[in-house]
Amino acid sequence: MRYIGLDDLLRRSLAEDIGPGDITTQSCVPATAIAQGHFVAKEAGVICGMDVMCRVFALLDPAIVVTLLAADGDKAAAGDIIAEIQGPARGVLQGERLALNLLQHLSGIATETARAVAEVAGTSAKICDTRKTTPGLRVLEKYAVQVGGGRNHRFGLFDGAMIKDNHIVAAGGIAKAVEAVRQHAPHTIQIEVETTNLAQVEEALTAGADIIMLDNMDCTQMAAAVKLIAGRAKTEASGNMGTRVLRDVAETGVDFISIGALTHTVRALDISVRLY
Amino acid sequence: MRYIGLDDLLRRSLAEDIGPGDITTQSCVPATAIAQGHFVAKEAGVICGMDVMCRVFALLDPAIVVTLLAADGDKAAAGDIIAEIQGPARGVLQGERLALNLLQHLSGIATETARAVAEVAGTSAKICDTRKTTPGLRVLEKYAVQVGGGRNHRFGLFDGAMIKDNHIVAAGGIAKAVEAVRQHAPHTIQIEVETTNLAQVEEALTAGADIIMLDNMDCTQMAAAVKLIAGRAKTEASGNMGTRVLRDVAETGVDFISIGALTHTVRALDISVRLY
Amino acid sequence: MRYIGLDDLLRRSLAEDIGPGDITTQSCVPATAIAQGHFVAKEAGVICGMDVMCRVFALLDPAIVVTLLAADGDKAAAGDIIAEIQGPARGVLQGERLALNLLQHLSGIATETARAVAEVAGTSAKICDTRKTTPGLRVLEKYAVQVGGGRNHRFGLFDGAMIKDNHIVAAGGIAKAVEAVRQHAPHTIQIEVETTNLAQVEEALTAGADIIMLDNMDCTQMAAAVKLIAGRAKTEASGNMGTRVLRDVAETGVDFISIGALTHTVRALDISVRLY
Amino acid sequence: MRYIGLDDLLRRSLAEDIGPGDITTQSCVPATAIAQGHFVAKEAGVICGMDVMCRVFALLDPAIVVTLLAADGDKAAAGDIIAEIQGPARGVLQGERLALNLLQHLSGIATETARAVAEVAGTSAKICDTRKTTPGLRVLEKYAVQVGGGRNHRFGLFDGAMIKDNHIVAAGGIAKAVEAVRQHAPHTIQIEVETTNLAQVEEALTAGADIIMLDNMDCTQMAAAVKLIAGRAKTEASGNMGTRVLRDVAETGVDFISIGALTHTVRALDISVRLY
Amino acid sequence: MRYIGLDDLLRRSLAEDIGPGDITTQSCVPATAIAQGHFVAKEAGVICGMDVMCRVFALLDPAIVVTLLAADGDKAAAGDIIAEIQGPARGVLQGERLALNLLQHLSGIATETARAVAEVAGTSAKICDTRKTTPGLRVLEKYAVQVGGGRNHRFGLFDGAMIKDNHIVAAGGIAKAVEAVRQHAPHTIQIEVETTNLAQVEEALTAGADIIMLDNMDCTQMAAAVKLIAGRAKTEASGNMGTRVLRDVAETGVDFISIGALTHTVRALDISVRLY
Amino acid sequence: MRYIGLDDLLRRSLAEDIGPGDITTQSCVPATAIAQGHFVAKEAGVICGMDVMCRVFALLDPAIVVTLLAADGDKAAAGDIIAEIQGPARGVLQGERLALNLLQHLSGIATETARAVAEVAGTSAKICDTRKTTPGLRVLEKYAVQVGGGRNHRFGLFDGAMIKDNHIVAAGGIAKAVEAVRQHAPHTIQIEVETTNLAQVEEALTAGADIIMLDNMDCTQMAAAVKLIAGRAKTEASGNMGTRVLRDVAETGVDFISIGALTHTVRALDISVRLY
Repeated sequence: MRYIGLDDLLRRSLAEDIGPGDITTQSCVPATAIAQGHFVAKEAGVICGMDVMCRVFALLDPAIVVTLLAADGDKAAAGDIIAEIQGPARGVLQGERLALNLLQHLSGIATETARAVAEVAGTSAKICDTRKTTPGLRVLEKYAVQVGGGRNHRFGLFDGAMIKDNHIVAAGGIAKAVEAVRQHAPHTIQIEVETTNLAQVEEALTAGADIIMLDNMDCTQMAAAVKLIAGRAKTEASGNMGTRVLRDVAETGVDFISIGALTHTVRALDISVRLY
Repeated sequence: MRYIGLDDLLRRSLAEDIGPGDITTQSCVPATAIAQGHFVAKEAGVICGMDVMCRVFALLDPAIVVTLLAADGDKAAAGDIIAEIQGPARGVLQGERLALNLLQHLSGIATETARAVAEVAGTSAKICDTRKTTPGLRVLEKYAVQVGGGRNHRFGLFDGAMIKDNHIVAAGGIAKAVEAVRQHAPHTIQIEVETTNLAQVEEALTAGADIIMLDNMDCTQMAAAVKLIAGRAKTEASGNMGTRVLRDVAETGVDFISIGALTHTVRALDISVRLY
Repeated sequence: MRYIGLDDLLRRSLAEDIGPGDITTQSCVPATAIAQGHFVAKEAGVICGMDVMCRVFALLDPAIVVTLLAADGDKAAAGDIIAEIQGPARGVLQGERLALNLLQHLSGIATETARAVAEVAGTSAKICDTRKTTPGLRVLEKYAVQVGGGRNHRFGLFDGAMIKDNHIVAAGGIAKAVEAVRQHAPHTIQIEVETTNLAQVEEALTAGADIIMLDNMDCTQMAAAVKLIAGRAKTEASGNMGTRVLRDVAETGVDFISIGALTHTVRALDISVRLY
Repeated sequence: MRYIGLDDLLRRSLAEDIGPGDITTQSCVPATAIAQGHFVAKEAGVICGMDVMCRVFALLDPAIVVTLLAADGDKAAAGDIIAEIQGPARGVLQGERLALNLLQHLSGIATETARAVAEVAGTSAKICDTRKTTPGLRVLEKYAVQVGGGRNHRFGLFDGAMIKDNHIVAAGGIAKAVEAVRQHAPHTIQIEVETTNLAQVEEALTAGADIIMLDNMDCTQMAAAVKLIAGRAKTEASGNMGTRVLRDVAETGVDFISIGALTHTVRALDISVRLY
Repeated sequence: MRYIGLDDLLRRSLAEDIGPGDITTQSCVPATAIAQGHFVAKEAGVICGMDVMCRVFALLDPAIVVTLLAADGDKAAAGDIIAEIQGPARGVLQGERLALNLLQHLSGIATETARAVAEVAGTSAKICDTRKTTPGLRVLEKYAVQVGGGRNHRFGLFDGAMIKDNHIVAAGGIAKAVEAVRQHAPHTIQIEVETTNLAQVEEALTAGADIIMLDNMDCTQMAAAVKLIAGRAKTEASGNMGTRVLRDVAETGVDFISIGALTHTVRALDISVRLY
Repeated sequence: MRYIGLDDLLRRSLAEDIGPGDITTQSCVPATAIAQGHFVAKEAGVICGMDVMCRVFALLDPAIVVTLLAADGDKAAAGDIIAEIQGPARGVLQGERLALNLLQHLSGIATETARAVAEVAGTSAKICDTRKTTPGLRVLEKYAVQVGGGRNHRFGLFDGAMIKDNHIVAAGGIAKAVEAVRQHAPHTIQIEVETTNLAQVEEALTAGADIIMLDNMDCTQMAAAVKLIAGRAKTEASGNMGTRVLRDVAETGVDFISIGALTHTVRALDISVRLY
């Protein structure tokens, strides 16, 4: 997974960690020393970030060779060796921390997403992410959600219209807000309206919303809303979608369940580097 | 908390979210509309990131006024209003997500750090962080650890020497590694040696290490190491310092306990904005 | 019209023009000299870029005062004074060229767009732009299209799906391509399929395309396509939409007519600065 | 044509177009798919921007191979294949638009410049450009003027002195202005004075101007000025140098004719990519 | 002295010095503490860099007030207070080093330039600089030369043509080289030819060089060259223009003497900050 | 010597020198011309900056081959050829100035440092640098000090604590200042206290300072201070450490002598390029 801007992110991150120099390595490790080792998953999970990890080392020293034994999306078991690394020791030691920080973070997201996806298996609900991502890492984090089997919601404020309370008030009602967006936004964009009760759902339907968000409703309300909408718009459940309720929500028949915690509360997957 | 580079981080993050434009807001909300609202802590925790949050809005529109009702380090109860905001609605709506993403993340770190610090209260052990931070956010995350009552370990590879296995092998033993760093690194830097058993602790002491890391030792070993060192070097416990073992580790008499999870596994504190 | 990134664009552009210094002005004009003057439209057109022009001078010297006598979207007649400027002469002289270059370019786009919009007045067709913009100026150029009364197509490759020949071949047919995008892209995005004949139009409809592009069809074909589609998808006419054919195309009943020339072939509107 | 800063321009432009990702291509086109095709000139013109186009693809994917069948400055006929391209389809599809936007724009400038140069063939007049360029593209646009057979005027405010009305007033007359520049500017710079009548021409000559601009004079005045100057300074005709007057102006004997429209009013040359 | 790009230079330089934070000041000095003090010239010299110094503090904290008691170009005596400063102590302490580093460096250049200018007083020779400047500081260093009474040679490779040995060989002789530049470079540029003997001087004259550099000639040769040229071109003496020979060189009648040491061998002027 | 950020520094520096283009070379030297030559030390000194010089040419044209005949730290005699260069002439000519500017500057620092180190040979004193470096070049300049045999003091405000007058006053005494830093700074940092008399030395010792700076003391005072400290802290002599006093200071028994002039007053080592 490479994108315009990845190198800038990695260079900034390397500069953050290495600053004016790795004083321990420069003192102890000769420029000619070679290191080799492997990356080990110390717990089970979905691996994500392998290309990114490779790129960290490539930026530090093109002579470092990383051999991938797993690809993004693979399920690793505890103890699995997922990559081997060999090359100039200075570069290996200087890139190790950043490589792991990214790999653990992205694999943590992919793993948790896969868990949520499994939870709703067999229903028509698709798990998706939100804009509650870590500043600077959104491309990577949304990619990790995909790798975990989830779907991406809009990337930002620019590639999807989401009409919330304040937009409705400012525009003078749901119908006017939908119409305003219809007139001004690119016609390649879908219009989503946030609703919290059935009356609003009706209004959004009448206004011609493409997607209706059912925000903080209980499952009974959601089921009623799904029934009312009857396929005339896509439906999205949102609001504190903790693991416990996921299955129930999915069974209401909603199309999407968006979960902020996929990216705002990330547990790093335990992966380490062993050099020898 | 302001630092050189904060504005760059925030501008990049705003660009990530807003991209070529917030199509919903630009369509529905007139340029002259005014919004007001407040930030509410929806669960108890240590607040962190208030200045950063203010800066987000200042960059978007200097006419937005944020009034802080809590300062970094304050303990908020669930339901506490921690800030009020008023100003041009477009800027408020466009900055809300980034402001919250940062505030929730940093408050999450501060809250968890405070919990760990409380756990070891009354012992001489100080809780500290590691380099296992989110790429791009290290200054802010290490600040959040301080706000939570923790201590900062070295910021990166450049402001502290940490001699690990590979450095020892490359240098030809602990004594030679310490000497090499002593000769090459700025004399303003302390030298830490990673050890995993008492024999290595002895070697490190003999070599004149300023700090000795006791890595992945059990509490009995650590207590023995602390006794052996007897104040001749600072001691740091490291390696899977989960909440359950923290008190026991602290009671071995170590000076520092470094915990990667403080920054690699962050649970966002639930804070929201209510506009009206 | 301000956006994150505008200042960077303007600073780079000022650096491009001023480089290490304006040697004529620094030699001849004392730092304390004051200049005043006005911006005059030397031909009739739709004005666009007034805020951007102000920002150029604000970046050079906050003491420069620009008074706007016209707003973006206003129609100026030849000879109209559209803004007055007063302030430190060095900044005025150094910013004049960049300010004019942008103002003339954006007003040229807005004027030409307004002409195209007038051409199709009374039909249901909406004039829209394309990705054939000047590298680095897309936000501003698409804004100028809006100011001229046009609509924006997708901003880039990320906020709308456009399935072309190559995508169809790679995916194995229109139906598979639409399905692939449906599965992978954010659900906030509409899917457009490029077609060149009625058979493809049928396929696209069956596949559930949200928008169907009628590419390089003649008016008879387009009319047939519109009839066939019958409101089940939005329609977009594309391909050499020169001024002469615009009315005819609009009368086929298409929803959108996209015109690359709006931004790839721009005639600067003649605007000048007179200082006195 | 490569220059320091070209890669930055291209990366910014790619980011502008691709943003967080090309959702159509990523959905439909496998990472391993190969595309091949060619660039066709769909109308006759002078080609410019071939190296720049190659660089766009090189930045996206070094595995893309572009074979040039024409060089900058070559005259293409309608239908000529000017380049072939082969390589990973994703990179080809993602770079196509930017490559064409630049190629069409620069070829448009080169073509129009060549037309103006042909117009004055056989006279001593040289066609040159101005600072009325597109912000951010000046190096490329001035290069396109050269490719079309034109000459470059000063690049910016820093590599040539141009004394205009305001400088003259501020300095206290033409003589004082010329002297001021002579004292302060690098001695490697020529000094040009803008004049609008013969009296000013005399003054500029007396002051020792290296170049005299004849601004908005009619051909009779210009011829008189050229006669008066008699080779003691270079002469430059300026001001609304539309195609119709070009030959007449050239025949007055001026050395240079500067034409803003070469870069401020650009008609893209029609070039397209055909993939198969 | 302010220029586009100064703030970027200063922010990078502050980041270089402060990095993730000034740990001494953050530990010892409360955010509310106020510092006051003054800048003292500890030796006599020409002051340069006062605006730049002010800008350093403005970027750190707009609440810091600097009162200038000397302007760029003023001659300070040892012990003179040249500026007063008052404001938030943290910003004052964090900016002090960078402010001094720049002030001392630029004043050192201005002082040395003034010395060289004095050395040739009464002759027609003007002292000028070269491209032997400190990477990143050229605008400031060339400004310091001006402040010291010197003249600027071309800024870089782009605003003056300098034909050296290699250019002559590549072009096939001096005449062809001059002609090549005449045909390709902007006509606002002067053409300088480097010569090392009278035969080359003759050739350069015949070729129509605007400026003739007399490189590494002794004073007798230079005098002969000046006589030969007889005002038909400007003359520039170059090559190891140490202080001892300066007067003799000036008396040969050359127009310019360019001295690399003005910027490549800088002795910082001793200036310090005293806080109280 | 390569570091993250070097390429950015070199690209900015090349852009500073080349700007929109090297007009002489582009006019006279064909794109296919090849140049060859060598770098000659024109005076004796310690060479520094060879890798940096190579990188300059690599960025301009990867086809340029530089063969190093000396390594950083080697002592060159006057006349020694230290490197050979061969490759596309345009790149060679465009990079020559920047390469030399860096090589001469860094070699100048290394040479002067080596001189100071030789001066104190046989004593226990180590020569070290300060923060009085050229803005933007600190990593390279501190590297040159190492190459010359010197030691680096802290890199900036972030990797060493230096308690000065103002910190002491703000904190309420030396003991409180040391304690404050001890509580807030990373434990990997040493704490240095600036003292100007024996009473302060005593206070600093009592407070537990790791390093004691003896600032502007005469040799008698310094010897007394060293005796008093008796190895309980490292000692650093500072303040106008001119060459004449260096030996005497070293013989007082101090551990470090820090010399600002190593980097604030640099005499370029005379190195030139000869092309043929």
